[in-house]
Amino acid sequence: MDRRNFLKAGGAATAASALAACGGNAPAPSTGGVAAPEIKLHWKMVTAWPANFPGLGTGAAKVGELIGRMSGGRLTVKVYGAGELVPAFEVFDAVSAGTAEMGHSGPYYWKGKAEAVQFFCAVPFGMNAQEQNGWLYHGGGLELWRELYARFDLIPFPAGNTGVQLAGWFRKEIASVADLKGLKMRIPGLGGEVLARLGGAPVNIPGGELYTAMQTGTIDATEWVGPYNDLAFGLNKVARYAYYPGWHEPGPTLECMVNKRAFEALPEDLQAIVEAACRAVNDDMLADYTAANQRALETLIDEHGVQLKKLPDDVLAALREASAAVLDELAAKDEFTRRVYASFKAFRDGARRWHEVSEVAYYAARG
Amino acid sequence: MDRRNFLKAGGAATAASALAACGGNAPAPSTGGVAAPEIKLHWKMVTAWPANFPGLGTGAAKVGELIGRMSGGRLTVKVYGAGELVPAFEVFDAVSAGTAEMGHSGPYYWKGKAEAVQFFCAVPFGMNAQEQNGWLYHGGGLELWRELYARFDLIPFPAGNTGVQLAGWFRKEIASVADLKGLKMRIPGLGGEVLARLGGAPVNIPGGELYTAMQTGTIDATEWVGPYNDLAFGLNKVARYAYYPGWHEPGPTLECMVNKRAFEALPEDLQAIVEAACRAVNDDMLADYTAANQRALETLIDEHGVQLKKLPDDVLAALREASAAVLDELAAKDEFTRRVYASFKAFRDGARRWHEVSEVAYYAARG
Repeated sequence: MDRRNFLKAGGAATAASALAACGGNAPAPSTGGVAAPEIKLHWKMVTAWPANFPGLGTGAAKVGELIGRMSGGRLTVKVYGAGELVPAFEVFDAVSAGTAEMGHSGPYYWKGKAEAVQFFCAVPFGMNAQEQNGWLYHGGGLELWRELYARFDLIPFPAGNTGVQLAGWFRKEIASVADLKGLKMRIPGLGGEVLARLGGAPVNIPGGELYTAMQTGTIDATEWVGPYNDLAFGLNKVARYAYYPGWHEPGPTLECMVNKRAFEALPEDLQAIVEAACRAVNDDMLADYTAANQRALETLIDEHGVQLKKLPDDVLAALREASAAVLDELAAKDEFTRRVYASFKAFRDGARRWHEVSEVAYYAARG
Repeated sequence: MDRRNFLKAGGAATAASALAACGGNAPAPSTGGVAAPEIKLHWKMVTAWPANFPGLGTGAAKVGELIGRMSGGRLTVKVYGAGELVPAFEVFDAVSAGTAEMGHSGPYYWKGKAEAVQFFCAVPFGMNAQEQNGWLYHGGGLELWRELYARFDLIPFPAGNTGVQLAGWFRKEIASVADLKGLKMRIPGLGGEVLARLGGAPVNIPGGELYTAMQTGTIDATEWVGPYNDLAFGLNKVARYAYYPGWHEPGPTLECMVNKRAFEALPEDLQAIVEAACRAVNDDMLADYTAANQRALETLIDEHGVQLKKLPDDVLAALREASAAVLDELAAKDEFTRRVYASFKAFRDGARRWHEVSEVAYYAARG
């Protein structure tokens, strides 16, 4: 779903953004003899990303663009980068209150609202993108997510995935668990809690500040996303070692949340269009990362001489053990989280069994 | 995208299928105060699957249903199972000629039209679902596919994927390459050509005839899809051993092809709707298989006592070597196939490098 891959993307998209920009009731773009629609709705989408940030921000923009094109301009969406209308971490409240009709972000940013959100996004040693989609769409995950968000007048839609991330960028080698002790690392959410159990000092810093924080020594290490986004921020210039695999974020689901009343006020065809636009971007973003990460990895290693290293097996084992303890404690906090974790864990165990003889065995056989 | 996961799926979908069934110009379904659209188009979709066959057929049906709902009934699609309007293997010609406006099938069925189609679907030791999507959408694959299908007045859209398949069902154990000699196995396409190089006797038989062919001893072994679909056909009752991994079909892309003139006659909003419906199902079908395969695998092993075995490493190595030779020869046949193979191979090599340190390393770390 590159622009070049959209057939005839130009006309309708341009018309839609023109409408969104002027906010007026200009005539609908030509629809080839079909009746001009009578309504014009203009929605706002607030996001947790810099405007058009590669992958995450461009994905959010595609959701809006697709809705405009599919609706023939009856529903246009103006997309705001983080801080343009509300700060990144206020997306949830803004959409819940109806300040904006839509928001694009990562569910785990809202753990202050409910711990369970993290399962709908990414948990340490949890599921990868393919498994997350299986659980959400065909394993009961999305029903649970909708049940939770309904409390906040929101409807969630999966709308993107980065795939397995990198473990992060480190100035010093990680040779053993002892090297994690005292390590000041930017790693938010559950990953950070796991690191803390092993003696590390996790902090959270917005993506745009990572380069400076590493350069000035405020932090010793940082994770961000993967080759595609990490190269864009120049993390290779402030850290010598890149470690893999991303045990803490094996395939985070990004979300498009919609204000419940705004959604329910839509006619059924526009509801279907909003849902399918999110679904299309859920498919597209992972494809984008799959292509862009491999190109960026090549650049990082072949051009910038980055040292790409695997975390030692005993470090991974310690992280895995600490993760299980963190998740068990999380699930004990409230009844809803317990239900979500039970559903998540059952699907993960089934997926592990099947993928052992399909995806994993295939990767090994291909060599 | 189970029915239960569609919000308010009932109304519009029912209206759309009612319209499609009567073929008349009944009033549009209510769109909540929005202008009733003036046109009513009724398209036919022919498919290579039994009507509503799990995964493949239900995925095709979802494409049609989504188009009807998103268009508010302006474009409805009546979906035909294999043989209902045209036989499975005449889908391509029927859509090319405009007998039906759309078709849902597997691109590799059309290798008689052009050998290159197989790369857009599945090739032995090729790419899995995530990699196929990366190549098609963001690595140049879809442009090549469109270039090829334009010769036949068709526009292709990726519209589903089964994920890594099983290697197949065998009455006898495969302990070495020698056991492939003389083996009468149902395995179509390039996989069959590879088997033939190792002395096997590949045949192609429609899915619905596999059970009987195995039962009567017409064939010694068969591949079909994976636990979900193979259990549905009862293959576990006619073969003792299930082997993995599906080296011959690591993640086949299913297609929705649209007649070029029919597509170009649509207004831009309906074009965008057709494209996004395919995209949504491309996302959904893999999720469906990911969930259903794990449940079916459990049933096959825990309830039916199926012996699930890995193909021996030396057999996989021999298959891999033979596959490379088959692909090289295929690419030498014509200039277009050479271009497609070069693009495919470059992406596969890059994906392998990245997935080695992301997906593969993650699966291993999770344990």
